[in-house]
Amino acid sequence: MDIKSIIRKKRQSGELTEEEIKYFIGKLTKEQISEAQAAAVLSYIYVNGLTEDEILNLSVAMAESGDMIDLNDISDKIVDNHATGGVGDKATLLLMPILAALDIPVAKIASRGYGVSSGIIDKLESIPGFKTDFSIDEFKNIIKNTGLCIMNQGLNFAPAEGKLYKLRNDVACENSLPILAASLMSLKIATGSNKIVFDITCGKGTYINNKEEAKRLSKLLIKLGKALNKEVACVITNMNQPIGYSIGHNLEIRETIMALKGVIAEDLADVVEALGSIMISLATENKDLNHNAKLIKQVIKSGKAYEKFKEMVSAQCGDVNFVEDYDLFKKAKNIVPVLSTEEGIVESIDSDIIGSIAVYLGAGRMKEEETINRTAGITICKKIGDYVTVGETLAYIHTEDDKKIAGTAQNLQEAFEFTTKKNNSKSRVLEIIK
Amino acid sequence: MDIKSIIRKKRQSGELTEEEIKYFIGKLTKEQISEAQAAAVLSYIYVNGLTEDEILNLSVAMAESGDMIDLNDISDKIVDNHATGGVGDKATLLLMPILAALDIPVAKIASRGYGVSSGIIDKLESIPGFKTDFSIDEFKNIIKNTGLCIMNQGLNFAPAEGKLYKLRNDVACENSLPILAASLMSLKIATGSNKIVFDITCGKGTYINNKEEAKRLSKLLIKLGKALNKEVACVITNMNQPIGYSIGHNLEIRETIMALKGVIAEDLADVVEALGSIMISLATENKDLNHNAKLIKQVIKSGKAYEKFKEMVSAQCGDVNFVEDYDLFKKAKNIVPVLSTEEGIVESIDSDIIGSIAVYLGAGRMKEEETINRTAGITICKKIGDYVTVGETLAYIHTEDDKKIAGTAQNLQEAFEFTTKKNNSKSRVLEIIK
Repeated sequence: MDIKSIIRKKRQSGELTEEEIKYFIGKLTKEQISEAQAAAVLSYIYVNGLTEDEILNLSVAMAESGDMIDLNDISDKIVDNHATGGVGDKATLLLMPILAALDIPVAKIASRGYGVSSGIIDKLESIPGFKTDFSIDEFKNIIKNTGLCIMNQGLNFAPAEGKLYKLRNDVACENSLPILAASLMSLKIATGSNKIVFDITCGKGTYINNKEEAKRLSKLLIKLGKALNKEVACVITNMNQPIGYSIGHNLEIRETIMALKGVIAEDLADVVEALGSIMISLATENKDLNHNAKLIKQVIKSGKAYEKFKEMVSAQCGDVNFVEDYDLFKKAKNIVPVLSTEEGIVESIDSDIIGSIAVYLGAGRMKEEETINRTAGITICKKIGDYVTVGETLAYIHTEDDKKIAGTAQNLQEAFEFTTKKNNSKSRVLEIIK
Repeated sequence: MDIKSIIRKKRQSGELTEEEIKYFIGKLTKEQISEAQAAAVLSYIYVNGLTEDEILNLSVAMAESGDMIDLNDISDKIVDNHATGGVGDKATLLLMPILAALDIPVAKIASRGYGVSSGIIDKLESIPGFKTDFSIDEFKNIIKNTGLCIMNQGLNFAPAEGKLYKLRNDVACENSLPILAASLMSLKIATGSNKIVFDITCGKGTYINNKEEAKRLSKLLIKLGKALNKEVACVITNMNQPIGYSIGHNLEIRETIMALKGVIAEDLADVVEALGSIMISLATENKDLNHNAKLIKQVIKSGKAYEKFKEMVSAQCGDVNFVEDYDLFKKAKNIVPVLSTEEGIVESIDSDIIGSIAVYLGAGRMKEEETINRTAGITICKKIGDYVTVGETLAYIHTEDDKKIAGTAQNLQEAFEFTTKKNNSKSRVLEIIK
C-alpha cells in the first residue's frame, strides 16, 4: 500500500477500503506523506465523493489519530452541540451555562478559530485569566464540581482532523459534504459525545450553500450517528445575517453576558432555544420542545444561567469581575458609526462580507500563528426586518487602526440589502432534522 | 484574483485565462502559494484536462519563470532532442558528439535525474571533473569553440517547471498529457530550442501507457510548436525493454564510450539513428532519413564521433583518461549474475521493474537531496529476441550492498517474459510524427 495508489484509486472514483483510509490518515498524522499528497486525496474526494462506509471509516480513523475521551463516568446525560460555522455565533456560549443550570452536565471540547468562523476558546480567553488547557482528569473534575467545563481541543484530539481542516481551507474544499461530515463526526467520536445536536448553518459566510445541501449533510450525520450508536439531531439555520449584535472577541463576550442577563437579540434567542430544547430532549425525559424552550427562557430570566456562567469563569480561573462589570473589557480606539445611504427594510446582511471585514480588522486569524485583536470587530445596529432611513447608523466599526476605517465603512454598507416589503419570516431556524 | 478561485475554476472544468495561468505560475515560482494548493490545481487539471490555449499559456508562463536563452547568435542549425524518459537511455549521450561531428552545433541544457529516469547530467558527472555549471556566456563560448556543450538546467531555467515536475511526481500526475506537454515545451522555450525532436517513450517504465497516448502527446507537441514558431518532430519509441545493455551511472557512460567506438546494442542504434536522422533533416538540407542514418553510421565508424566526445569531455574539464580507458571507472563490490529459470525467447523486459531495481540499488534518487551510487546498476545480457536456456545469465546486478543481492535477483528474473515464438518486430521505433 502506498499513498500514490490511494491517490490514483480515488481519482478513478474507487471506494477506499478501511485499511487504505487508516493508512492515509496514519501517514497524514505522522507527516509521512506530503501536504501536496493529502491535498490530492482531498481534491479527488471533492470531485468523486465518498461512500457512507468511507465517511464512517474516515471519521473513525481521524478520531483514533489522537486521544479519545470517555465521558460515561461523568453522566449519560451529556449532550454536545456543534455549529458548522457562523459569523457572530455565541449560541454555545449561552447554551453551556443554560444547560448546566438545568442540571445537564456540559463537557465541551472545542477548537480555536480559523478564518471568518472565530473559535469559542478564543472568545472566552477575552476574559482575563480564563484557562482552557486541562488534563482529562482536571476537565472531568471541574465538570463534577460545577456541572460544566470547556477545554481546548488542542492537538490531542483528532489531530488528523486538524491537519485536514487546515488543508481543506487551503485548497478550497471547505464545502465538501463528505469531508465535512467525517470531520465533524471524528471530533465527536474522539471527544466522547454520544448525544449531539448539530447546528448546520447555511448561506453566505458558511460552508454550506443552501438548505438542500444542509439537509443532505444533516441526513448524512444522522446516518453516521446511527452506525456509531450515537443520537444525532440537526438544526438547519439560515445565515442571512450575522448572529446577534456583535462580531469580535471582547464584543461577543459582552453580548453573551448581556444575553444571560436577559437582553438578547431575537435571532440569537431563536437559535439558542431551538438547539437547547432539542439538547434537553436528548438529555432528559422532557421531549416537548416548546416546554423545553420555556425552561430555557426561565433559566435565563431567573438569573441561574448567568450565575452558572460566573461559576464556569471562576472554575476556569477567569476574572469574574469582567462578567459582573462588562465595561471592564477594553474597547477599540476607534468606534465609528457606519451610516445608511439607503432607505428601506433590511432584507439581509451578507455574513461573508461581515466576516471578512472582521478578519481584516484583526478579529480573526487566517493563519494559525496570527494573533487576534480582541477589541476589533463590528456591532450591528440594524437587523433583518428593521426599517432604516438615510443617515441612520447601520453598524459600528471597532478598530485600533485609523487607516482601516474608510474602506471598511463602504464594504459594510454594501453588506446590507434593502427591500420595500416587510419580511414575514425572520426566523433563523429553517428546519429540525432528527 | 486568488489561488482558491483558480482552484475552483479548474475544478469546475473552466478554462483558465492567460492572466490566471500567469498568476498561478508566478505564485508557485515565488512560493507564495502552498504546495497543497499547487497540487490541487494539478489534480483538477489531471481530471478535467487543459485546452490547447491553456497548455500554450502554461508553457510560456513556466518558461518565463526564469532565465531565457537565445541561441540564434550561435547558429540557426541547432536542433535539440528530448526524451520523455527511458530506462537505460543513452541516446542523447551518443547524439551530442554524432551531430557535432557532422558540424551541427549542439547546445544541450539538461536536468538531473529523478526516480527511474536518470538524468544525463548525473551520468556525465561519472567522468571525474566533468563540469556542467556554466554561465550562459561560457556555455556559448564552448559551443563556438568545440561545437557542443551540455549545461545543467539547474534552477535558472523554467524553475516553475522544476517545481511542478516534483509535485506531479508527488501526487501521481506524471502521466497527465497536457501537463507533460506544457512542461516539455516550457523547457524548450526557456532554453532557446527552435528545432526539436521529441523521443516519446511509451510502455512500462515510462509516463505514457501506450502508442495511442504517445500519438496524442506527439500531435499536441507539434501543434504547440507551430503556435510557438518552432519545428517539432516526434519519434514514438517502445519501452518494452531497457535501452541498450546497461542501467546505472558508471555503467551507462562505459556503454556510451563503447558504442562510440562501434560496439552498440541494436536497439540503442535504432533509436539513435531514428532521432539523429530527423535531427539532421531539421538542421540541414539533407531531408532523406535513410541517407542521414548512413551519415550517423559513418561518423561513428570513422571515429569522429568518439573524438568529438573526447573533445567535449576535455572542454568541460572531465578526465579524458576515463574515456580512453573505460576500465578506470570504478566497479561495484558485488557483480552477481542472475540466471534464467526458464527456457525460451525473450519477449519483453519490464522496464518498470528494472528501473525500480536500479533505484533500489542506489542508481537513482527518489528525492532531490539523495546521493547517487555511481557503481550501482544492472547489465542486461539477454535482450528481446534472444534465445535463453535454463541457467544462462540474464543480467548482472552491480551493488555495494551484499544484502540487496538475493531479493533483487528474483525481481530481475521476474522482469523477463519469455515466448516460444520468434519475435518479428524488434524495433524500438514505433512511429515518426512530423
